[in-house]
Amino acid sequence: MRAISESRCFGGVQGVYSHASQVTGCDMTFGLFLPAEAETQPVPMLWYLSGLTCTHENAMTKAGAQRWAAEHGVALIFPDTSPRGADVADDEAYDLGQGAGFYLNATQAPWAPHYRMWDYISEELPRIVTANFALDEERQAITGHSMGGHGALTLAMRLPGRFRSVSAFAPIAQPTQSDWGRKQFTAYLGEDELSWRDHDATHLMNEYGCDGEVLIDQGATDQFLDLLRPEALANAMMRRRQPGAFRMQAGYDHSYWFVQSFIPEHLAFHAEALWR
Amino acid sequence: MRAISESRCFGGVQGVYSHASQVTGCDMTFGLFLPAEAETQPVPMLWYLSGLTCTHENAMTKAGAQRWAAEHGVALIFPDTSPRGADVADDEAYDLGQGAGFYLNATQAPWAPHYRMWDYISEELPRIVTANFALDEERQAITGHSMGGHGALTLAMRLPGRFRSVSAFAPIAQPTQSDWGRKQFTAYLGEDELSWRDHDATHLMNEYGCDGEVLIDQGATDQFLDLLRPEALANAMMRRRQPGAFRMQAGYDHSYWFVQSFIPEHLAFHAEALWR
Repeated sequence: MRAISESRCFGGVQGVYSHASQVTGCDMTFGLFLPAEAETQPVPMLWYLSGLTCTHENAMTKAGAQRWAAEHGVALIFPDTSPRGADVADDEAYDLGQGAGFYLNATQAPWAPHYRMWDYISEELPRIVTANFALDEERQAITGHSMGGHGALTLAMRLPGRFRSVSAFAPIAQPTQSDWGRKQFTAYLGEDELSWRDHDATHLMNEYGCDGEVLIDQGATDQFLDLLRPEALANAMMRRRQPGAFRMQAGYDHSYWFVQSFIPEHLAFHAEALWR
Repeated sequence: MRAISESRCFGGVQGVYSHASQVTGCDMTFGLFLPAEAETQPVPMLWYLSGLTCTHENAMTKAGAQRWAAEHGVALIFPDTSPRGADVADDEAYDLGQGAGFYLNATQAPWAPHYRMWDYISEELPRIVTANFALDEERQAITGHSMGGHGALTLAMRLPGRFRSVSAFAPIAQPTQSDWGRKQFTAYLGEDELSWRDHDATHLMNEYGCDGEVLIDQGATDQFLDLLRPEALANAMMRRRQPGAFRMQAGYDHSYWFVQSFIPEHLAFHAEALWR
Protein backbone atom coordinates (compact mmCIF):
# COMPACT_ATOMS: atom_id res chain seq x y z
CA MET A 1 0.00 0.00 0.00
CA ARG A 2 1.30 3.42 -0.95
CA ALA A 3 0.31 6.83 0.37
CA ILE A 4 -0.35 9.20 -2.51
CA SER A 5 -1.12 12.12 -0.21
CA GLU A 6 -1.90 12.84 3.42
CA SER A 7 -3.25 16.22 4.51
CA ARG A 8 -4.34 17.66 7.84
CA CYS A 9 -8.11 18.13 7.74
CA PHE A 10 -10.45 19.13 10.59
CA GLY A 11 -7.86 18.02 13.11
CA GLY A 12 -7.48 14.60 11.49
CA VAL A 13 -5.92 13.36 8.26
CA GLN A 14 -7.38 13.10 4.75
CA GLY A 15 -5.29 10.56 2.90
CA VAL A 16 -5.32 8.99 -0.55
CA TYR A 17 -3.79 5.53 -0.90
CA SER A 18 -3.11 3.07 -3.68
CA HIS A 19 -2.59 -0.67 -3.55
CA ALA A 20 -2.34 -3.67 -5.88
CA SER A 21 -5.65 -5.49 -5.60
CA GLN A 22 -5.66 -9.26 -5.89
CA VAL A 23 -9.43 -9.26 -6.29
CA THR A 24 -9.72 -6.82 -9.18
CA GLY A 25 -6.31 -7.61 -10.66
CA CYS A 26 -5.27 -3.98 -10.95
CA ASP A 27 -4.08 -1.07 -8.83
CA MET A 28 -6.90 0.47 -6.80
CA THR A 29 -7.02 3.90 -5.18
CA PHE A 30 -9.11 4.94 -2.18
CA GLY A 31 -9.59 7.97 0.04
CA LEU A 32 -9.58 7.71 3.83
CA PHE A 33 -10.38 10.37 6.39
CA LEU A 34 -9.22 9.63 9.93
CA PRO A 35 -10.51 11.87 12.70
CA ALA A 36 -8.15 13.07 15.45
CA GLU A 37 -9.39 10.32 17.79
CA ALA A 38 -7.66 7.74 15.60
CA GLU A 39 -4.31 8.89 17.00
CA THR A 40 -5.14 7.21 20.31
CA GLN A 41 -7.77 4.54 19.61
CA PRO A 42 -9.48 2.59 16.86
CA VAL A 43 -12.42 4.60 15.52
CA PRO A 44 -15.69 3.54 13.91
CA MET A 45 -15.86 3.71 10.13
CA LEU A 46 -18.37 4.85 7.54
CA TRP A 47 -18.09 3.55 3.99
CA TYR A 48 -19.13 6.00 1.27
CA LEU A 49 -19.82 4.33 -2.08
CA SER A 50 -19.93 6.65 -5.07
CA GLY A 51 -22.02 6.79 -8.20
CA LEU A 52 -21.59 6.40 -11.95
CA THR A 53 -18.50 8.09 -13.48
CA CYS A 54 -16.99 8.73 -10.04
CA THR A 55 -13.55 7.76 -8.78
CA HIS A 56 -12.51 7.75 -5.09
CA GLU A 57 -12.15 11.50 -5.43
CA ASN A 58 -15.57 12.97 -6.18
CA ALA A 59 -17.30 12.42 -2.86
CA MET A 60 -14.06 13.01 -0.98
CA THR A 61 -13.81 16.51 -2.38
CA LYS A 62 -17.47 17.40 -2.96
CA ALA A 63 -19.67 15.73 -0.33
CA GLY A 64 -18.50 17.93 2.53
CA ALA A 65 -18.47 14.94 4.87
CA GLN A 66 -15.16 15.43 6.71
CA ARG A 67 -16.34 18.25 8.96
CA TRP A 68 -19.12 16.11 10.35
CA ALA A 69 -17.05 12.94 10.49
CA ALA A 70 -14.51 14.88 12.59
CA GLU A 71 -17.24 16.16 14.87
CA HIS A 72 -18.52 12.64 15.46
CA GLY A 73 -15.12 10.91 15.57
CA VAL A 74 -15.90 8.68 12.61
CA ALA A 75 -13.54 7.59 9.79
CA LEU A 76 -14.66 7.84 6.16
CA ILE A 77 -13.61 5.47 3.40
CA PHE A 78 -14.09 6.47 -0.22
CA PRO A 79 -13.42 3.50 -2.55
CA ASP A 80 -13.26 3.72 -6.31
CA THR A 81 -16.31 2.58 -8.31
CA SER A 82 -14.63 0.04 -10.61
CA PRO A 83 -11.34 -1.50 -11.63
CA ARG A 84 -9.17 0.78 -13.75
CA GLY A 85 -6.41 0.58 -16.32
CA ALA A 86 -5.59 0.13 -19.98
CA ASP A 87 -5.90 -3.68 -19.75
CA VAL A 88 -9.26 -3.54 -17.96
CA ALA A 89 -12.34 -3.94 -20.16
CA ASP A 90 -14.30 -0.75 -20.77
CA ASP A 91 -17.18 0.64 -22.81
CA GLU A 92 -17.73 4.00 -24.45
CA ALA A 93 -20.95 4.56 -22.47
CA TYR A 94 -20.60 6.43 -19.17
CA ASP A 95 -22.76 3.81 -17.44
CA LEU A 96 -20.90 0.61 -18.28
CA GLY A 97 -17.34 -0.48 -17.64
CA GLN A 98 -14.80 1.74 -15.87
CA GLY A 99 -16.57 4.07 -13.43
CA ALA A 100 -19.63 1.86 -13.44
CA GLY A 101 -18.83 -1.32 -11.50
CA PHE A 102 -22.27 -1.56 -9.88
CA TYR A 103 -20.75 -3.26 -6.79
CA LEU A 104 -21.08 -6.80 -8.11
CA ASN A 105 -18.86 -9.67 -9.30
CA ALA A 106 -19.17 -9.96 -13.07
CA THR A 107 -19.54 -13.46 -14.46
CA GLN A 108 -19.57 -12.60 -18.18
CA ALA A 109 -16.83 -11.81 -20.71
CA PRO A 110 -15.12 -9.44 -21.09
CA TRP A 111 -15.91 -8.17 -17.57
CA ALA A 112 -15.37 -11.19 -15.34
CA PRO A 113 -11.58 -10.98 -14.86
CA HIS A 114 -11.46 -7.53 -13.22
CA TYR A 115 -15.02 -6.46 -12.35
CA ARG A 116 -15.26 -7.94 -8.85
CA MET A 117 -16.28 -4.88 -6.88
CA TRP A 118 -18.51 -6.90 -4.53
CA ASP A 119 -15.57 -8.90 -3.24
CA TYR A 120 -13.32 -5.87 -3.29
CA ILE A 121 -15.63 -3.73 -1.12
CA SER A 122 -16.89 -6.52 1.12
CA GLU A 123 -13.64 -8.44 1.69
CA GLU A 124 -10.34 -7.16 0.38
CA LEU A 125 -10.54 -3.45 1.12
CA PRO A 126 -11.90 -3.94 4.68
CA ARG A 127 -8.92 -6.26 5.40
CA ILE A 128 -6.48 -3.71 4.04
CA VAL A 129 -7.81 -0.67 5.84
CA THR A 130 -8.29 -2.38 9.20
CA ALA A 131 -4.76 -3.85 8.99
CA ASN A 132 -3.17 -0.49 8.25
CA PHE A 133 -5.18 2.11 10.16
CA ALA A 134 -6.73 2.60 13.60
CA LEU A 135 -10.19 1.41 12.56
CA ASP A 136 -12.62 -0.63 14.62
CA GLU A 137 -14.04 -3.33 12.35
CA GLU A 138 -16.77 -4.05 14.89
CA ARG A 139 -18.24 -0.63 14.26
CA GLN A 140 -18.98 -0.13 10.58
CA ALA A 141 -21.71 1.76 8.76
CA ILE A 142 -22.31 2.36 5.06
CA THR A 143 -23.77 5.01 2.79
CA GLY A 144 -23.62 5.93 -0.86
CA HIS A 145 -24.99 8.06 -3.66
CA SER A 146 -26.94 6.86 -6.70
CA MET A 147 -25.14 3.70 -7.92
CA GLY A 148 -23.29 3.89 -4.59
CA GLY A 149 -26.61 4.02 -2.73
CA HIS A 150 -27.50 0.81 -4.54
CA GLY A 151 -24.16 -0.62 -3.41
CA ALA A 152 -24.62 0.46 0.19
CA LEU A 153 -28.12 -1.01 0.43
CA THR A 154 -27.31 -4.30 -1.26
CA LEU A 155 -24.11 -4.84 0.75
CA ALA A 156 -25.90 -4.06 4.01
CA MET A 157 -28.75 -6.46 3.32
CA ARG A 158 -26.57 -9.32 2.08
CA LEU A 159 -24.03 -8.99 4.88
CA PRO A 160 -26.22 -9.10 7.98
CA GLY A 161 -24.32 -8.13 11.11
CA ARG A 162 -21.65 -6.22 9.22
CA PHE A 163 -23.08 -2.69 9.29
CA ARG A 164 -24.79 -1.05 12.24
CA SER A 165 -26.61 1.44 10.04
CA VAL A 166 -27.13 2.14 6.36
CA SER A 167 -28.15 5.25 4.50
CA ALA A 168 -28.35 6.34 0.89
CA PHE A 169 -28.65 9.45 -1.21
CA ALA A 170 -30.84 9.01 -4.28
CA PRO A 171 -30.06 5.29 -4.59
CA ILE A 172 -30.77 3.24 -7.69
CA ALA A 173 -33.55 1.50 -5.80
CA GLN A 174 -34.79 -1.15 -8.20
CA PRO A 175 -32.14 -1.71 -10.89
CA THR A 176 -33.75 -4.91 -12.22
CA GLN A 177 -36.61 -2.71 -13.48
CA SER A 178 -34.56 0.28 -14.61
CA ASP A 179 -32.35 1.24 -17.53
CA TRP A 180 -29.81 1.90 -14.81
CA GLY A 181 -29.48 -1.78 -14.07
CA ARG A 182 -30.94 -3.97 -16.78
CA LYS A 183 -28.26 -3.05 -19.31
CA GLN A 184 -25.43 -3.46 -16.80
CA PHE A 185 -26.74 -6.66 -15.21
CA THR A 186 -27.16 -8.19 -18.65
CA ALA A 187 -23.57 -7.29 -19.50
CA TYR A 188 -21.98 -8.25 -16.17
CA LEU A 189 -24.23 -11.12 -15.00
CA GLY A 190 -25.84 -12.44 -18.18
CA GLU A 191 -29.39 -12.90 -19.37
CA ASP A 192 -30.67 -14.92 -16.40
CA GLU A 193 -32.64 -12.33 -14.46
CA LEU A 194 -32.80 -14.55 -11.37
CA SER A 195 -29.08 -13.87 -10.89
CA TRP A 196 -29.82 -10.12 -10.80
CA ARG A 197 -32.06 -10.18 -7.77
CA ASP A 198 -29.25 -10.27 -5.22
CA HIS A 199 -28.28 -6.84 -6.53
CA ASP A 200 -31.70 -5.23 -6.33
CA ALA A 201 -32.33 -3.27 -3.12
CA THR A 202 -36.11 -3.49 -3.46
CA HIS A 203 -35.99 -7.26 -3.85
CA LEU A 204 -33.60 -7.61 -0.92
CA MET A 205 -35.77 -5.33 1.23
CA ASN A 206 -38.79 -7.48 0.48
CA GLU A 207 -36.86 -10.67 1.28
CA TYR A 208 -34.47 -9.75 4.07
CA GLY A 209 -34.51 -6.11 5.20
CA CYS A 210 -31.73 -4.44 7.16
CA ASP A 211 -30.50 -5.16 10.69
CA GLY A 212 -30.30 -1.55 11.75
CA GLU A 213 -32.12 1.59 10.79
CA VAL A 214 -32.18 2.88 7.23
CA LEU A 215 -32.14 6.54 6.20
CA ILE A 216 -32.83 7.43 2.58
CA ASP A 217 -32.89 10.92 1.09
CA GLN A 218 -34.12 11.57 -2.42
CA GLY A 219 -34.36 14.90 -4.23
CA ALA A 220 -37.91 15.58 -5.42
CA THR A 221 -36.67 17.25 -8.61
CA ASP A 222 -33.87 14.78 -9.28
CA GLN A 223 -33.47 14.56 -13.05
CA PHE A 224 -33.07 10.76 -12.83
CA LEU A 225 -36.11 9.88 -10.73
CA ASP A 226 -37.60 7.60 -13.35
CA LEU A 227 -34.41 5.55 -13.32
CA LEU A 228 -34.06 5.51 -9.53
CA ARG A 229 -37.57 4.22 -8.71
CA PRO A 230 -37.78 5.37 -5.05
CA GLU A 231 -41.47 4.41 -4.90
CA ALA A 232 -40.60 0.72 -5.19
CA LEU A 233 -38.14 0.77 -2.31
CA ALA A 234 -40.37 2.95 -0.11
CA ASN A 235 -43.18 0.48 -0.61
CA ALA A 236 -40.93 -2.44 0.28
CA MET A 237 -39.54 -0.68 3.36
CA MET A 238 -42.95 0.08 4.78
CA ARG A 239 -44.38 -3.29 3.84
CA ARG A 240 -41.53 -4.91 5.73
CA ARG A 241 -41.92 -2.43 8.66
CA GLN A 242 -38.22 -1.67 8.19
CA PRO A 243 -37.14 0.84 10.86
CA GLY A 244 -35.92 4.00 9.21
CA ALA A 245 -37.02 6.95 7.11
CA PHE A 246 -37.58 7.66 3.44
CA ARG A 247 -37.45 11.38 2.76
CA MET A 248 -38.39 13.21 -0.42
CA GLN A 249 -36.55 16.56 -0.32
CA ALA A 250 -38.32 19.39 -2.13
CA GLY A 251 -36.35 21.14 -4.84
CA TYR A 252 -33.17 19.05 -4.72
CA ASP A 253 -31.61 17.43 -7.78
CA HIS A 254 -29.14 14.55 -8.18
CA SER A 255 -25.95 16.55 -7.61
CA TYR A 256 -23.40 16.76 -4.84
CA TRP A 257 -25.14 19.98 -3.72
CA PHE A 258 -27.94 17.69 -2.65
CA VAL A 259 -25.54 15.27 -0.95
CA GLN A 260 -23.71 18.12 0.76
CA SER A 261 -26.97 19.54 2.10
CA PHE A 262 -27.95 16.37 3.92
CA ILE A 263 -24.60 14.77 4.75
CA PRO A 264 -24.62 16.34 8.24
CA GLU A 265 -27.82 14.48 9.10
CA HIS A 266 -26.48 11.24 7.68
CA LEU A 267 -23.29 11.53 9.72
CA ALA A 268 -25.32 12.19 12.86
CA PHE A 269 -27.55 9.22 12.04
CA HIS A 270 -24.59 6.87 11.60
CA ALA A 271 -22.69 8.27 14.59
CA GLU A 272 -25.63 7.47 16.83
CA ALA A 273 -25.52 3.83 15.73
CA LEU A 274 -21.71 3.61 15.76
CA TRP A 275 -21.15 5.11 19.20
CA ARG A 276 -24.18 3.51 20.89
CA MET B 1 -70.18 28.99 22.84
CA ARG B 2 -69.54 28.10 26.43
CA ALA B 3 -66.24 27.73 28.29
CA ILE B 4 -66.22 24.48 30.24
CA SER B 5 -62.77 25.12 31.66
CA GLU B 6 -59.76 27.37 31.16
CA SER B 7 -56.43 26.61 32.80
CA ARG B 8 -53.02 28.26 32.71
CA CYS B 9 -50.65 25.95 30.84
CA PHE B 10 -47.04 26.63 29.74
CA GLY B 11 -47.70 30.37 29.99
CA GLY B 12 -50.80 30.15 27.81
CA VAL B 13 -54.32 28.79 28.32
CA GLN B 14 -55.67 25.28 27.86
CA GLY B 15 -59.42 25.62 27.41
CA VAL B 16 -62.34 23.29 26.77
CA TYR B 17 -65.38 24.75 25.03
CA SER B 18 -68.81 23.57 24.00
CA HIS B 19 -71.16 24.91 21.35
CA ALA B 20 -74.36 23.98 19.56
CA SER B 21 -73.36 22.81 16.09
CA GLN B 22 -75.68 23.54 13.19
CA VAL B 23 -73.75 21.12 11.02
CA THR B 24 -73.89 18.06 13.25
CA GLY B 25 -77.18 19.00 14.92
CA CYS B 26 -75.87 18.44 18.45
CA ASP B 27 -73.64 20.02 21.07
CA MET B 28 -69.95 19.63 20.24
CA THR B 29 -66.99 19.99 22.58
CA PHE B 30 -63.42 20.91 21.63
CA GLY B 31 -60.11 21.62 23.32
CA LEU B 32 -58.03 24.68 22.47
CA PHE B 33 -54.55 25.57 23.62
CA LEU B 34 -53.56 29.21 23.14
CA PRO B 35 -49.90 30.10 23.65
CA ALA B 36 -48.94 33.28 25.51
CA GLU B 37 -48.40 35.12 22.22
CA ALA B 38 -52.16 35.03 21.61
CA GLU B 39 -52.62 37.73 24.27
CA THR B 40 -51.14 40.28 21.90
CA GLN B 41 -51.55 38.94 18.35
CA PRO B 42 -53.30 36.29 16.28
CA VAL B 43 -51.26 33.10 16.33
CA PRO B 44 -50.94 30.27 13.81
CA MET B 45 -52.97 27.16 14.50
CA LEU B 46 -52.40 23.41 14.34
CA TRP B 47 -55.41 21.09 14.10
CA TYR B 48 -55.03 17.75 15.86
CA LEU B 49 -57.56 15.13 14.73
CA SER B 50 -57.96 12.13 17.00
CA GLY B 51 -58.55 8.47 16.39
CA LEU B 52 -61.22 5.85 16.99
CA THR B 53 -62.94 5.95 20.41
CA CYS B 54 -61.40 9.35 21.25
CA THR B 55 -63.17 12.52 22.32
CA HIS B 56 -61.61 16.00 22.29
CA GLU B 57 -59.88 14.98 25.51
CA ASN B 58 -57.52 12.10 24.74
CA ALA B 59 -54.89 13.89 22.71
CA MET B 60 -55.30 17.05 24.77
CA THR B 61 -54.27 15.19 27.91
CA LYS B 62 -52.02 12.46 26.52
CA ALA B 63 -50.15 13.72 23.43
CA GLY B 64 -47.87 16.08 25.36
CA ALA B 65 -48.21 18.69 22.64
CA GLN B 66 -48.73 21.87 24.70
CA ARG B 67 -45.14 22.28 25.81
CA TRP B 68 -43.93 22.35 22.24
CA ALA B 69 -46.83 24.43 20.96
CA ALA B 70 -45.95 27.01 23.64
CA GLU B 71 -42.32 26.95 22.61
CA HIS B 72 -43.24 27.59 18.98
CA GLY B 73 -46.10 30.03 19.64
CA VAL B 74 -48.67 27.82 17.94
CA ALA B 75 -52.30 27.19 18.99
CA LEU B 76 -53.66 23.64 19.14
CA ILE B 77 -57.24 22.66 18.37
CA PHE B 78 -58.55 19.27 19.51
CA PRO B 79 -61.99 18.57 17.99
CA ASP B 80 -64.18 15.63 18.90
CA THR B 81 -64.27 12.65 16.54
CA SER B 82 -68.04 12.43 15.95
CA PRO B 83 -71.40 13.85 16.87
CA ARG B 84 -72.59 12.82 20.32
CA GLY B 85 -75.81 12.38 22.27
CA ALA B 86 -78.71 10.10 23.03
CA ASP B 87 -80.56 11.05 19.82
CA VAL B 88 -77.47 10.55 17.63
CA ALA B 89 -77.24 7.18 15.84
CA ASP B 90 -74.68 4.79 17.27
CA ASP B 91 -73.43 1.22 17.01
CA GLU B 92 -72.18 -1.23 19.57
CA ALA B 93 -68.86 -1.62 17.77
CA TYR B 94 -66.05 0.71 18.86
CA ASP B 95 -65.27 1.54 15.23
CA LEU B 96 -68.64 2.72 13.97
CA GLY B 97 -70.92 5.51 15.14
CA GLN B 98 -70.08 7.74 18.08
CA GLY B 99 -66.30 8.10 18.44
CA ALA B 100 -65.81 6.93 14.86
CA GLY B 101 -66.93 9.72 12.53
CA PHE B 102 -64.12 9.14 10.00
CA TYR B 103 -64.12 12.84 9.04
CA LEU B 104 -66.73 12.53 6.29
CA ASN B 105 -70.33 13.56 5.59
CA ALA B 106 -72.56 10.50 5.82
CA THR B 107 -75.16 10.07 3.09
CA GLN B 108 -76.86 6.92 4.38
CA ALA B 109 -79.48 6.24 7.07
CA PRO B 110 -79.32 6.31 10.02
CA TRP B 111 -76.07 8.32 9.94
CA ALA B 112 -76.78 11.15 7.53
CA PRO B 113 -78.55 13.60 9.88
CA HIS B 114 -75.68 14.07 12.36
CA TYR B 115 -72.54 12.49 10.92
CA ARG B 116 -71.17 15.48 9.02
CA MET B 117 -67.67 15.70 10.47
CA TRP B 118 -66.15 16.80 7.14
CA ASP B 119 -68.20 19.99 7.10
CA TYR B 120 -67.80 20.43 10.83
CA ILE B 121 -63.99 20.30 10.75
CA SER B 122 -63.53 22.07 7.44
CA GLU B 123 -66.15 24.84 7.76
CA GLU B 124 -68.08 25.32 10.99
CA LEU B 125 -65.42 24.85 13.63
CA PRO B 126 -62.83 27.01 11.81
CA ARG B 127 -65.40 29.83 11.65
CA ILE B 128 -66.17 29.48 15.34
CA VAL B 129 -62.62 29.38 16.62
CA THR B 130 -61.33 32.20 14.41
CA ALA B 131 -64.29 34.39 15.40
CA ASN B 132 -63.76 33.84 19.12
CA PHE B 133 -59.99 33.55 19.62
CA ALA B 134 -56.79 35.27 18.49
CA LEU B 135 -56.10 32.81 15.68
CA ASP B 136 -54.64 33.59 12.25
CA GLU B 137 -56.70 31.70 9.70
CA GLU B 138 -54.05 32.34 7.06
CA ARG B 139 -51.62 30.16 8.97
CA GLN B 140 -53.09 26.72 9.56
CA ALA B 141 -51.53 23.28 9.72
CA ILE B 142 -53.02 19.88 10.47
CA THR B 143 -52.02 16.59 12.06
CA GLY B 144 -53.76 13.56 13.51
CA HIS B 145 -53.43 10.05 14.83
CA SER B 146 -54.79 6.86 13.26
CA MET B 147 -58.34 7.72 12.06
CA GLY B 148 -57.29 11.32 12.73
CA GLY B 149 -54.24 10.90 10.55
CA HIS B 150 -56.60 9.78 7.81
CA GLY B 151 -58.66 12.91 8.48
CA ALA B 152 -55.65 15.21 8.43
CA LEU B 153 -54.34 13.83 5.16
CA THR B 154 -57.67 13.79 3.36
CA LEU B 155 -58.62 17.30 4.50
CA ALA B 156 -55.22 18.66 3.48
CA MET B 157 -55.36 17.14 0.02
CA ARG B 158 -58.96 18.10 -0.71
CA LEU B 159 -58.60 21.66 0.58
CA PRO B 160 -55.56 22.90 -1.34
CA GLY B 161 -54.26 26.19 0.01
CA ARG B 162 -55.80 25.70 3.43
CA PHE B 163 -52.94 24.06 5.33
CA ARG B 164 -49.30 25.01 5.09
CA SER B 165 -48.13 21.61 6.32
CA VAL B 166 -49.61 18.24 7.18
CA SER B 167 -48.36 15.41 9.34
CA ALA B 168 -49.77 12.19 10.69
CA PHE B 169 -49.08 9.57 13.32
CA ALA B 170 -49.89 6.03 12.20
CA PRO B 171 -52.63 7.16 9.80
CA ILE B 172 -55.21 4.86 8.30
CA ALA B 173 -53.49 5.23 4.97
CA GLN B 174 -55.72 3.31 2.56
CA PRO B 175 -59.14 2.82 4.16
CA THR B 176 -60.81 1.68 0.94
CA GLN B 177 -58.65 -1.47 1.15
CA SER B 178 -58.82 -1.97 4.93
CA ASP B 179 -61.27 -3.26 7.49
CA TRP B 180 -60.74 0.15 9.05
CA GLY B 181 -62.58 1.85 6.24
CA ARG B 182 -64.60 -0.56 4.13
CA LYS B 183 -67.10 -1.29 6.87
CA GLN B 184 -67.48 2.37 7.81
CA PHE B 185 -67.60 3.72 4.25
CA THR B 186 -70.27 1.16 3.40
CA ALA B 187 -72.31 2.27 6.39
CA TYR B 188 -71.80 6.03 6.01
CA LEU B 189 -71.46 6.43 2.23
CA GLY B 190 -73.16 3.35 0.76
CA GLU B 191 -72.08 0.54 -1.52
CA ASP B 192 -70.74 2.68 -4.38
CA GLU B 193 -66.99 2.44 -3.85
CA LEU B 194 -66.33 5.35 -6.21
CA SER B 195 -67.78 7.63 -3.54
CA TRP B 196 -65.19 6.37 -1.08
CA ARG B 197 -62.13 7.50 -2.98
CA ASP B 198 -62.29 11.10 -1.81
CA HIS B 199 -61.67 9.75 1.69
CA ASP B 200 -58.68 7.57 0.87
CA ALA B 201 -55.30 9.23 1.48
CA THR B 202 -53.46 6.91 -0.88
CA HIS B 203 -55.90 7.62 -3.70
CA LEU B 204 -55.72 11.37 -3.06
CA MET B 205 -51.92 11.26 -2.94
CA ASN B 206 -51.85 9.50 -6.30
CA GLU B 207 -54.28 12.02 -7.79
CA TYR B 208 -53.48 15.34 -6.12
CA GLY B 209 -50.73 15.26 -3.48
CA CYS B 210 -50.22 17.96 -0.85
CA ASP B 211 -49.24 21.62 -1.29
CA GLY B 212 -46.70 21.63 1.47
CA GLU B 213 -44.43 19.06 3.02
CA VAL B 214 -45.78 15.89 4.61
CA LEU B 215 -44.32 14.19 7.68
CA ILE B 216 -45.57 10.73 8.59
CA ASP B 217 -44.46 8.64 11.56
CA GLN B 218 -45.45 5.02 11.94
CA GLY B 219 -44.52 2.59 14.72
CA ALA B 220 -42.79 -0.50 13.36
CA THR B 221 -44.46 -2.74 15.94
CA ASP B 222 -47.86 -1.06 15.79
CA GLN B 223 -50.43 -3.75 16.49
CA PHE B 224 -52.69 -2.40 13.73
CA LEU B 225 -50.20 -2.23 10.85
CA ASP B 226 -52.19 -4.54 8.62
CA LEU B 227 -55.16 -2.20 8.92
CA LEU B 228 -53.13 0.98 8.44
CA ARG B 229 -51.36 -0.01 5.18
CA PRO B 230 -48.44 2.45 5.34
CA GLU B 231 -46.78 0.74 2.37
CA ALA B 232 -49.54 1.94 0.03
CA LEU B 233 -49.21 5.58 1.05
CA ALA B 234 -45.40 5.51 1.07
CA ASN B 235 -45.47 4.16 -2.47
CA ALA B 236 -47.90 6.88 -3.57
CA MET B 237 -45.85 9.63 -1.90
CA MET B 238 -42.62 8.63 -3.57
CA ARG B 239 -44.27 7.95 -6.91
CA ARG B 240 -45.70 11.46 -6.80
CA ARG B 241 -42.34 12.89 -5.59
CA GLN B 242 -44.31 14.42 -2.71
CA PRO B 243 -41.92 16.48 -0.57
CA GLY B 244 -41.82 15.07 2.92
CA ALA B 245 -40.77 12.04 4.93
CA PHE B 246 -42.23 8.67 5.79
CA ARG B 247 -40.60 7.26 8.92
CA MET B 248 -40.90 3.76 10.35
CA GLN B 249 -40.00 4.04 14.04
CA ALA B 250 -38.45 0.91 15.53
CA GLY B 251 -40.20 -0.57 18.54
CA TYR B 252 -43.13 1.85 18.77
CA ASP B 253 -46.76 0.71 18.96
CA HIS B 254 -50.04 2.51 18.24
CA SER B 255 -50.39 4.25 21.61
CA TYR B 256 -50.09 7.81 22.82
CA TRP B 257 -46.63 6.90 24.10
CA PHE B 258 -45.68 6.75 20.45
CA VAL B 259 -47.43 10.05 19.70
CA GLN B 260 -45.85 11.71 22.73
CA SER B 261 -42.37 10.56 21.67
CA PHE B 262 -42.53 12.26 18.28
CA ILE B 263 -44.86 15.19 18.88
CA PRO B 264 -41.91 17.54 19.50
CA GLU B 265 -40.60 16.89 15.99
CA HIS B 266 -44.05 17.34 14.50
CA LEU B 267 -44.53 20.68 16.28
CA ALA B 268 -41.11 21.83 15.03
CA PHE B 269 -42.01 20.69 11.51
CA HIS B 270 -45.30 22.60 11.51
CA ALA B 271 -43.82 25.66 13.22
CA GLU B 272 -41.26 25.98 10.45
CA ALA B 273 -44.05 26.11 7.86
CA LEU B 274 -46.34 28.32 9.96
CA TRP B 275 -43.76 30.96 10.87
CA ARG B 276 -41.93 31.00 7.53
